Order: sequence, then C-alpha cells, then structure tokens
Amino acid sequence: MYVCDFIRFIEEFAPKELAIEGDNVGLQVGDNLEKELNRIGIALDPSLHVIKKAKDFEVDVLFTHHPLLKDPIRNFTGVIYKKLKILMEDDIILYSAHTNLDVCKNGLNDALSSLYGLKDVEYLYDNGLGRVGLFEGSFEDFLKITKTFLHKNPVVVKSRDVDENFKLAVLSGYGLSQSAVKYVSEKADVYLSGDLTHHSKILAEELGLVVIDATHYSTEVYGLKKIKDMLIDKLGVEVISLDF
Amino acid sequence: MYVCDFIRFIEEFAPKELAIEGDNVGLQVGDNLEKELNRIGIALDPSLHVIKKAKDFEVDVLFTHHPLLKDPIRNFTGVIYKKLKILMEDDIILYSAHTNLDVCKNGLNDALSSLYGLKDVEYLYDNGLGRVGLFEGSFEDFLKITKTFLHKNPVVVKSRDVDENFKLAVLSGYGLSQSAVKYVSEKADVYLSGDLTHHSKILAEELGLVVIDATHYSTEVYGLKKIKDMLIDKLGVEVISLDF
Amino acid sequence: MYVCDFIRFIEEFAPKELAIEGDNVGLQVGDNLEKELNRIGIALDPSLHVIKKAKDFEVDVLFTHHPLLKDPIRNFTGVIYKKLKILMEDDIILYSAHTNLDVCKNGLNDALSSLYGLKDVEYLYDNGLGRVGLFEGSFEDFLKITKTFLHKNPVVVKSRDVDENFKLAVLSGYGLSQSAVKYVSEKADVYLSGDLTHHSKILAEELGLVVIDATHYSTEVYGLKKIKDMLIDKLGVEVISLDF
Amino acid sequence: MYVCDFIRFIEEFAPKELAIEGDNVGLQVGDNLEKELNRIGIALDPSLHVIKKAKDFEVDVLFTHHPLLKDPIRNFTGVIYKKLKILMEDDIILYSAHTNLDVCKNGLNDALSSLYGLKDVEYLYDNGLGRVGLFEGSFEDFLKITKTFLHKNPVVVKSRDVDENFKLAVLSGYGLSQSAVKYVSEKADVYLSGDLTHHSKILAEELGLVVIDATHYSTEVYGLKKIKDMLIDKLGVEVISLDF
Amino acid sequence: MYVCDFIRFIEEFAPKELAIEGDNVGLQVGDNLEKELNRIGIALDPSLHVIKKAKDFEVDVLFTHHPLLKDPIRNFTGVIYKKLKILMEDDIILYSAHTNLDVCKNGLNDALSSLYGLKDVEYLYDNGLGRVGLFEGSFEDFLKITKTFLHKNPVVVKSRDVDENFKLAVLSGYGLSQSAVKYVSEKADVYLSGDLTHHSKILAEELGLVVIDATHYSTEVYGLKKIKDMLIDKLGVEVISLDF
Amino acid sequence: MYVCDFIRFIEEFAPKELAIEGDNVGLQVGDNLEKELNRIGIALDPSLHVIKKAKDFEVDVLFTHHPLLKDPIRNFTGVIYKKLKILMEDDIILYSAHTNLDVCKNGLNDALSSLYGLKDVEYLYDNGLGRVGLFEGSFEDFLKITKTFLHKNPVVVKSRDVDENFKLAVLSGYGLSQSAVKYVSEKADVYLSGDLTHHSKILAEELGLVVIDATHYSTEVYGLKKIKDMLIDKLGVEVISLDF
Ligand SMILES: [Fe+2]
Ligand SMILES: [Fe+2]
Ligand SMILES: [Fe+2]
Ligand SMILES: [Fe+2]
Ligand SMILES: [Fe+2]
Ligand SMILES: [Fe+2]
Repeated sequence: MYVCDFIRFIEEFAPKELAIEGDNVGLQVGDNLEKELNRIGIALDPSLHVIKKAKDFEVDVLFTHHPLLKDPIRNFTGVIYKKLKILMEDDIILYSAHTNLDVCKNGLNDALSSLYGLKDVEYLYDNGLGRVGLFEGSFEDFLKITKTFLHKNPVVVKSRDVDENFKLAVLSGYGLSQSAVKYVSEKADVYLSGDLTHHSKILAEELGLVVIDATHYSTEVYGLKKIKDMLIDKLGVEVISLDF
Repeated sequence: MYVCDFIRFIEEFAPKELAIEGDNVGLQVGDNLEKELNRIGIALDPSLHVIKKAKDFEVDVLFTHHPLLKDPIRNFTGVIYKKLKILMEDDIILYSAHTNLDVCKNGLNDALSSLYGLKDVEYLYDNGLGRVGLFEGSFEDFLKITKTFLHKNPVVVKSRDVDENFKLAVLSGYGLSQSAVKYVSEKADVYLSGDLTHHSKILAEELGLVVIDATHYSTEVYGLKKIKDMLIDKLGVEVISLDF
Repeated sequence: MYVCDFIRFIEEFAPKELAIEGDNVGLQVGDNLEKELNRIGIALDPSLHVIKKAKDFEVDVLFTHHPLLKDPIRNFTGVIYKKLKILMEDDIILYSAHTNLDVCKNGLNDALSSLYGLKDVEYLYDNGLGRVGLFEGSFEDFLKITKTFLHKNPVVVKSRDVDENFKLAVLSGYGLSQSAVKYVSEKADVYLSGDLTHHSKILAEELGLVVIDATHYSTEVYGLKKIKDMLIDKLGVEVISLDF
Repeated sequence: MYVCDFIRFIEEFAPKELAIEGDNVGLQVGDNLEKELNRIGIALDPSLHVIKKAKDFEVDVLFTHHPLLKDPIRNFTGVIYKKLKILMEDDIILYSAHTNLDVCKNGLNDALSSLYGLKDVEYLYDNGLGRVGLFEGSFEDFLKITKTFLHKNPVVVKSRDVDENFKLAVLSGYGLSQSAVKYVSEKADVYLSGDLTHHSKILAEELGLVVIDATHYSTEVYGLKKIKDMLIDKLGVEVISLDF
Repeated sequence: MYVCDFIRFIEEFAPKELAIEGDNVGLQVGDNLEKELNRIGIALDPSLHVIKKAKDFEVDVLFTHHPLLKDPIRNFTGVIYKKLKILMEDDIILYSAHTNLDVCKNGLNDALSSLYGLKDVEYLYDNGLGRVGLFEGSFEDFLKITKTFLHKNPVVVKSRDVDENFKLAVLSGYGLSQSAVKYVSEKADVYLSGDLTHHSKILAEELGLVVIDATHYSTEVYGLKKIKDMLIDKLGVEVISLDF
Repeated sequence: MYVCDFIRFIEEFAPKELAIEGDNVGLQVGDNLEKELNRIGIALDPSLHVIKKAKDFEVDVLFTHHPLLKDPIRNFTGVIYKKLKILMEDDIILYSAHTNLDVCKNGLNDALSSLYGLKDVEYLYDNGLGRVGLFEGSFEDFLKITKTFLHKNPVVVKSRDVDENFKLAVLSGYGLSQSAVKYVSEKADVYLSGDLTHHSKILAEELGLVVIDATHYSTEVYGLKKIKDMLIDKLGVEVISLDF
C-alpha cells in the first residue's frame, strides 16, 4: 500500500469538502505520496511530543485530528522548526482530518451520538457539526455513560432539573463558546462538549441549559479510537496510537 | 453619600482610561446618579442570579467586575429583558470596573502579585494587564499558597522542572489563549491564570511553560474581596457580596 | 386575544423576510408574549413622548413603524433608559414593522400608489421599496391630491415642465439621497418622497427630475392610518394612534 | 493678476490643511494656472446652471464652496460630461474651498458667530467646525436676527423653553445628523444649522435641544457674501455671484 | 451609421457582461451617441499621444482596448485634463472593450489560440481569460511562430526540456503574476504572455514551467489587428490604427 | 565566529527597524544560532537552485536579499517542502535582509547613488527607499555607466530630451509601478530601476519622465557584490556568491 492509497481512503471516508470554511485539512507536510506505507501513527494533536514518538516508532504517515497550523506563518524557528525538521528528515507524511472528521458519517460526532443511543438524531448545526436527539433515560443514566466512557470526573453545570427522556446535544471538542451555549439552549435540554470557560458557565445557568464538560480531549479521543479500529480493520497496515 | 460620590471614588481608584480598548466599563444601567446610596452589592458577574439577589437585598448600587454586555444589542427580550426590568423597576444602578480594575494600583493583578510576595514586579503586558516578578521559594511553596488562597484543586500543566526562586507571571481571569501562552513563555517560568483549554495546554507543554489554572473565578474573586474590604473601610456604607 | 396572536397577524401581513438587510424589525422590547391584549397604541416613532402616552393610555402593545434602535448599544442611561423603564415597568410590549411594512402588499408604499391611482405599477427598487407607475392627469392634478391628502405645503423642485399622464415614483419616508435621485431620474418624471436636503435638490435640478417633498412624516402616516383602520377592522381590540 | 495669485491668496485665507479628512478641496478642474485673471465667478454650488452662467459671464475662475465631486468617477457622460466640456472649452478654472472655508478665521462659521454677536466663542467640534458661545438676548431676539439675515421662515423645533442669555451653537450647511444632535445637546441650549430631517427632529425633542433649520443654503450663503466682499476689497478683479 | 450603432455592434461582439469584476469597460467619455460616425480610430492605449492623433485624424470614435482610467478620480488637472479637453472639444467618443474583448469569441485570446493552431482548446481560467490546448510541433516550431508573428526577440525562461506536442497556455497582455505562474504550472508545459518580472521568472524556474514573454503590447496588438480587419469588413466606415 | 555573531553584525549594518511595514526580514529558517560559522553563501534569491548550491558548497548560513516567503503558509509540500527539507537536513540557517538592506547606509540604494556620483543626494521616499540627486554629465554619460556596470542592454523609455546635469532617481529592484512613475515624475528627470511593464511605460511617456529599466536583478546585484566584499573584509569567514 502507498501513502496516496491511504489518503484516497481517508478522503472517501471524510471528504475534505465537509470541512468548515477556513479549516486546514488534508496534507500538512510531505511531498512524495508514492512512498510505501507500512505503519500509521494516529493522534489527536501533532504536538512535538507526538512527532518525536512518530519518529521513534518509525511511522510512515502521522494521521492527526488537529492540523499542524491554523494560522499561516512565514518564518521557521523554535517549536515549528523542530517539528518540521523531524518530519522532513525522517520522511514522515503528516495528514490531518479535522472538522471533516467531526462531521462525516461515522465520524467523531456520530460516535458520541451512538454512545448515548440517541433517537431522531439531527445535525446540531447546519454545517454538520454536533448532533442532537432524544436520550432515552434519566439524567443519572446519562452521567453514568459519560463517566464510564468519556471522563471519570466531568464538570456538570446543572442549572435546572432534567426530566427523563430529554433532548441531548453533543459536540466533540470545543463547543462551548457563549454564542454556542445560546444557540444550543434553544435546541436541547442538556449539552455535552468540552473546554468550558467562566462566561459560558454563567450564561448556561442564566439560560437554563444543563452543560457537561467531559473535556475537549476525551470527547474527541472517544471517536478517534473507533477510527483507529476502522483503519486497522480496512487497511492491511499497522496503526499505533501516539497520544491516547 | 450619593451614587455619584461612589462613582467618583471608584473612578479615582480605577480610572476608566486604564481599561483596554473595546472594553465596556463604567455606568452600565442607570440614569439618576443623585440618589442616595446606603447599600452596595458587589459581585464578579451581573448574572440574573446576582441581580435577583441585589433586588432582594435592596442594594442601591450593584458594582461588578464583568460588564453587563460586551457586544451591543438593539432588541430586548429573554434574559437581558429580565435583568433590565429588575434593575429599572427597583432603581438599582449597575456600575462595572473591568480591565481598569485588573490593571490599576492595588487592583486584581496587584492582589495576586502581593499574595505571592513577588519581587522586582513588572507589568506582564505593556497595557498593564498581568504581573511578572521573582517568586522566592520552591514550586511546592507556590502550589501551597495557590491551594490555600485561590483554589483547592488547580489544574497544573508541569511541562518541566522548576528551580527554586523562579520567574512567576500572574493574570487574573482569562489569560490562557494560545497567543498569551506563547507570549508569556518568553517572560516567565511559571504562569498562573484561569480558563485553560486544550490547545493552550498542548502549546504550554511544547514551549516548556509551566501553567497553573486556578480558575477564572478564583483568580478574580481573590482581589475582589480586597476591593470589598477597601470599600467598607473607605466609604460609610454597607457592602455585601453577592456571588462570592 | 393574546400578544402573540397580534404578532402572528402582523407577521402574516408584513412578513419580516421582506425587510431590507440590516433593518431592525419585529419584537423590540418584551418577554411575555402570552399576556392578554386589549389595547394597541400605534405610532410612527417610539419617541419618549409616544411611550409616555402609551403608558397614560395603558396600552398593552405599542406598534410603531420606526424601530427603537438602529444602532445597537451596551450602556443604558439617558433617553433610552427612560424609554425602557416605562415599557418594562408598565409591561408594554414594543413591536415594530419598518421596511417590511413599506414593502408589503397594502403597505405604506402601496397606500401612496393607490392614493394617486397609478397604472402599470412596478416596484421602484428590486427589493420592493417604492412604487412607479403612470399617473393619469396633469401635474396640477397631482399637486392637488398631494396637498389634500399628504401635506398642505409640500416643497416642489420643478426643474422642467411635466406633460399630462406622466411617470410618477413614490417612496414613503426618506427616499431622497443623492444616489436615489440619480436612480429615480432614469425611471420616472416626477418623484414624491420625504426629507429633501440641499445637495439632492441641486442634483434633481441638474438631472431634470421633478421632486416633491411631502415630508417623511406625512408620506408614512398616510399609510399608517390605513393600517390602523385595518387593525380595528380585523382584530377585536381597541387601537389608538399616539403621534398622528 | 494671474490665477495662481488668486489661488495663493485663497490658500492663505483658508489653508487646505484645515479641511476635514476625505474632503475634496482646492483645484477641481484646470491645468494652466499661469493664465490671466480678470473676472471671478463665486457660487455655493458648481451646478450645471452655475457653470453655464460662468461661461455666459466669461469668468476666468469659478470659485465655489461645494466641490465638483465628492465621490470619484472613471466614466464621463451625462451631467458631469456637460460640466467638464464647458469648463474645458472655455478655459474656466474651477476651484473650491469647502470645509477649510467653514473652519478658517473669518470663514463661514465665524460669519454666523458674528451675526449673533456670540460671547466666549469656542469651536463646536475639535476639528474647527461650528461655533458655540453665549447669545445675549431672548429667544425672540435670536429668531428676529435669524429671520432678518438668514431665512424668512426657518423651521423651529422648540422642545422646551429657553431662558434669556443662552448657549447657542451654529454650524453652516448640514449639521443635523442624529449623532450631531446628540453631541450638540450636551454643548448648547439652541442649535442653528441646515437640512433638518425627520429622525433628527424627533431626537432633538427627546433630548430637549432647541433646533432651528435656517436651510443649508442660507446658512452658507450668508458667509459667502462676506467672502465675496472681501475678495472685491482685496483683489483688483471683478467678482460676480452666480447662485446668490 | 451612428455612434450608437457602432456601440451596439461591439457589445454584441464582446458583451460587457464578460468583463471581469472591477474592470472599466464600455463608454469612457462622451454624451451624444446619436452623432454620425464616419471614422473610427483604434488603439491599444488611450494615451495622450494616441488622443492627439485621434484629433489630427478627425476620428468620431476612439476605440481602445485599455480603458481611460482604472482607478476613479475627482480632480482634473495635468495629463487627464489634457486628454479630456481634446476629446470634449473635438467631440470624440472614447469607448473601450477590455477584458470582455480578451475573453469573447474571436477576441484577443482566441486570436493567439488560432495563431498556434491549438487543439482541444479550453479556457485557462474559469472566467474565460487565457486559452490552453495542445500545440502540435516542437518547441522550435513554437518559437518560430512567436518570432514571426508576435515579437522578434521574446524573453524565454526555459527551465526544462519540452517534448514535441506539448500543452501550451496563452494569455494576451499581462498574465505573469506569481500566482498566475503557479496556477498555470499545473495546467500547461509552456506559457506565453507578457510583462514578465523578476520574481515570476524565479518561480517559473522553480516550478519547471517554460515561460515566454512576447510583451504585453505584442500579445494584444496581434488580436487587435484582427478586430480592426473585422470592423472594416462588417461596418461601412473607415478604421485607422493609432498605435500599431 | 558563531551564527549569532554574524546576525548581530548584519543587524547593526542594516537594522531590522528600517524595513518597510509588512516586509519579512531577519531569520527565515533555523533554530540553533549558537553553531559555528565558517562559510556564508550570499544570493539575491533563496531559490531552489540557490539552496541546492548552498548545500553542495556546505555553507553554514545562506544570506539572501529576498525573503523565503512574502505571504505566509500553513501546508508544506512541493517547492517549499524541498527547500525546507534541504535547509533543515543540512542545518543551513537562512537569513534575509530585504528592504532594510535597500534603505540602510551603504546599502543597495546608496551603492547605485555612488555609482553615478550623485550630488545633493536625498531619499526618494520618506521611508528611505531610493535616492535622488544631481547627475553631473550628459544622458550619454549616464547610459555608458549603466551599460558598463549594470546591464549591457537596458530598456530606455526616452519620452523627451535630457539636458546635461539632470536630476536622477535610482531605486534598486522593482520601482516601476504606475504610482511610483507618477510620484517620481515630480521629483526627477530620469529614473533608473527594474521590472518595467507596459502600463508604466505608457504613463512615463505621457508624464515626460525618462525611465531606464536596467533589470531588477542587475540593480540589486550591483550593491550585493559590495555587501559581499564588505563581509569578506570585516568577518574572518569565507563568503561565496550563489546566483551572481
Ligand atoms: Fe478539537
Ligand atoms: Fe474576568
Ligand atoms: Fe421612515
Ligand atoms: Fe454645504
Ligand atoms: Fe492589456
Ligand atoms: Fe528585489
């Protein structure tokens, strides 16, 4: 199998057109896509630590959810120099599927939706980010699933009581901006996402939206593990996880 | 004492000119500044909950750190309607001192600087936000102070060892954007602030900056309590805290 | 009848989607749309004077053509404080239909078109603002109608002679910017609107467009009176006019 | 005397640097400034009518207050074609002094200030536009002067009573935008300017500012006549007025 | 024949809608389109030199490829004064067909495509600018045609060998920005256009794109001559070329 | 000598603060500035060809006039991948001094000024770019120097005769935009720079500015050779030129 075969496979699974505008998805670093592919490293972040591990484990392709850079640069020193030097010296191709992997069928948001067994599921946003549907069970049932599969100790902002069988919204990663909390408060009773900050917490309380922060990391890694299993299953190559 | 006397006092203590551009400081809601002032409510946030308490406690002025609105509006319904209705019906003046109170002498950042007994203290940013100086003691000493006075259980991103007597940066509230982490990594060994999120954590690890998130709430309320004491001391009126 | 029924009725008559981009239409101030509706105040402007009368007459809903605010705000003092305080203390719902009411069928522009008995009527602008059609009669006939029904003493910029049976453009309110005069000069012989200013007058003379300023107020109130009659006719509630 | 001498004279009287940003002042049309100057036409507007008269009267220079164009163009047809053709064929130099003539010593605003014999006069705006000072007399005295020297029939928005000896603001031309009314309401009791429109009238009433619209034309032509007299007095050339 | 007939003819041949956004095409200078048309001057540029010749040859219409102005102006002195004065005094209508003439059927780009006998021709850009197709012959054949019909001494940036029967892109005028070179390098082997500058030359070498600069002038005049012949052929009027 | 010593030397000679806004000067690629420096490569452009030569010649630092990137990027493939890979694998530091080297004392513009022995030299632009002064000699003398030292065959746009002892403007690299030609036409009789294109040539003819294009390359390399000699003279390391 060649690198270009892997890329073709990923781009069928999570088409780049699904990414939201301004996102940096696809090939991040690399020139020769015709080289052979024996081992894939998979990670949430292309951090320096992950890239060093990718080198140690001699991966051919490093596949990450978060892109290498959001904001473009034109000078190369410090951390980004170190990252590029390792990737280039060791001929490691870096490829990212970010919001296209959140959005796509069987992607990170669908993974959360399945975890909670949501019924009548719809996109939370028109662009495909997030899911909202009916959770059949009590708030305690919901918390138990969250603690078992996502995070032992989530932050719970419980601004009001929740009846059994409630509307649940989920969004992998960071979905807790103030405008997001306002938007979701009109769509759901309970909202699970990551990276809760002070002002959003206050706003959720005012709006009566119950918010659970199960961390950016955990809400994305849950689905990434499914992706990893799928890659092992479908491609005849080794896949090793580097930060989960 | 009249409301305008209180405002004059605050604006001498925390001049509005110190606020960073675009901030919303000063009179938020109110028209008659000549009314008598017997009781002040003080709070971090002008949340609906706080405003209801302000009404229950019959305060004349509600003095908050965070402003009522950052982004302007032109329609009045929902939560903001409820807030304005209470304030207007009960003649409660809402006044906020935000980044001017962070920046000013004996303000929220100076309070943190004093807490750690920093030496050779300088502004962290040219605009006066944050403080950086020498902490005399070990990292364990630092953590002990943090846990005793700010937050029992802070998040610690310890990307490398810290020698005794280190450069410590502090910034009350939210100081942990990615650009802030990058900026501070060139100014200090350890950085205490609030509202840590995933990408900033990864970046701090890559840059070798030790970051402590003692929460947005706790890093600001610590200094607000000093302000409350000062108000009681200097003005002959009652001051009651409404969310701390 | 409830407030929400009134709103539903208005939004069928003058759908919000017809408003031009950036306009502020719909609910301006109010939270509980389930309250009973016995008396409607109708006005061109939600001025302080009108709002005081709305309170004196104990209206449940104040329905105006001009919105409360065009530019959004984030501090509440002075005139806007006084307006909001009255509306909130007396539970008066403020609702505005602005350019959607200009544009819609049987709205303010159609009222002017009917007044002059225009034939082969078309929208003056693609967005639905204004009307243009054939006026069957002499310029003196036209002036007589104007003086009888709109304004006793209109300003007439008569840059050239007008033959009988001419192309007449009408636009309620303010339609006399320089770019509007230029635009209309290619569509009509005579143009009736409001708020004429110096530079537009000079331009009309240069372009040979005959312009009549029957005032912003009168060109809008003419149609508002029809709306008032229609409301009385269709809804079982009292409707009183507050500034016309 | 040559055209360049005239221009030098005007630019000493009303330096171009005084003009507000974005204004179009100075040479509008013309190339040869070395030609002899025997007759100057002076006008408020370089309208087509004025330019035709300038040709008929064989002026060498047409000196106007309003510029030929505010917004730049790149195609030449219609009215602007006709204007340029006359000016170019007849070698008429068009020169404008706009906001620099409003602002300068003995310019259009100073003329209004002198008319009312204002005391303790200051700039209304920091950029030099408008004047504000003490009017010694009753509101009726003020109206009498206005009607005698500016306009027989000014529009008066009298939102409240005016005591004798009041603060009067004057601004030649158009000074009645809504933001201007708001600004002036904190500086003066009475405000005289031109081009009043509906929303500004309502706002003046709400803010309790007494506004008099003596027309854009009349408030500028009053000072222009003084300028004409001064030109006749100082330069040895004929000066004829073309639109006043 | 009248001027308006000529304009109608041109606008059928090169519809204005084909011009790229922001281009200035169509009537540049002139008001009376009903005047008789006996002689057309045609030129690449409406330069002062060309306009003087247009006057000397007493043309009724000056038809150019480049417009009079790209950026709009509001003051008229120096070169543009001289140009407008001649055109207006001598009643010469100036009309330009710029990118619409590049793009249209049998326009400037099609002329280049035909010159090289390209096969399987497509638009180079989606907006219709440029052409790309198969050149049947050797690079030497290509150079010979170029030197015979366009420019004796073109600049050739030959960054690599070119096989017989290669992909050739052509674009009349200026097509050699750095972004254009990058774009075309993925579409063709060889690229002919005009106005090559240093950075584009370096980039072409790095990307392995063979670039030929046959000058802006020559790549446009080649097609303009065809247009001239076509005008002579189709209209019963004299057409004289003024800068080629 | 270490790399940081070299950088310190250059930044004293051509301080980064002199660069015009938005320029990309200073360290382009590299992290360890403490490594030893034995051989410097100097070039106009960090082209792929130059970087390959830098590797072949085993330089420690590549010092170029043009920066690696003007516009920032966030994906690394193709030519930029190849460039970074070579630089990183071979530990070559890339450092650029661009407009700061044009502007600084004894920089590229001063080199041109000295070449022509200009008298009463001033900056051409306020920001330090270009030089203008008196050339003592005939236009033929000027051309002889140009052909001897800069380019055998410069493009000469001779729109009018030039008297002996004329005002000469020089600007290394690209100085021939249309706005530059207009600006310089009011400052000098003759203008030498590089990268002449069609529209600027026409404009120079209209404005009567004599323009000489001695190429972007040659007008910059002339001064770069002086810089190379100075580096050899002042630093005890080998300096080899890679594209001149
Ligand atoms: Fe994420
Ligand atoms: Fe805060
Ligand atoms: Fe209106
Ligand atoms: Fe004016
Ligand atoms: Fe062209
Ligand atoms: Fe250059």
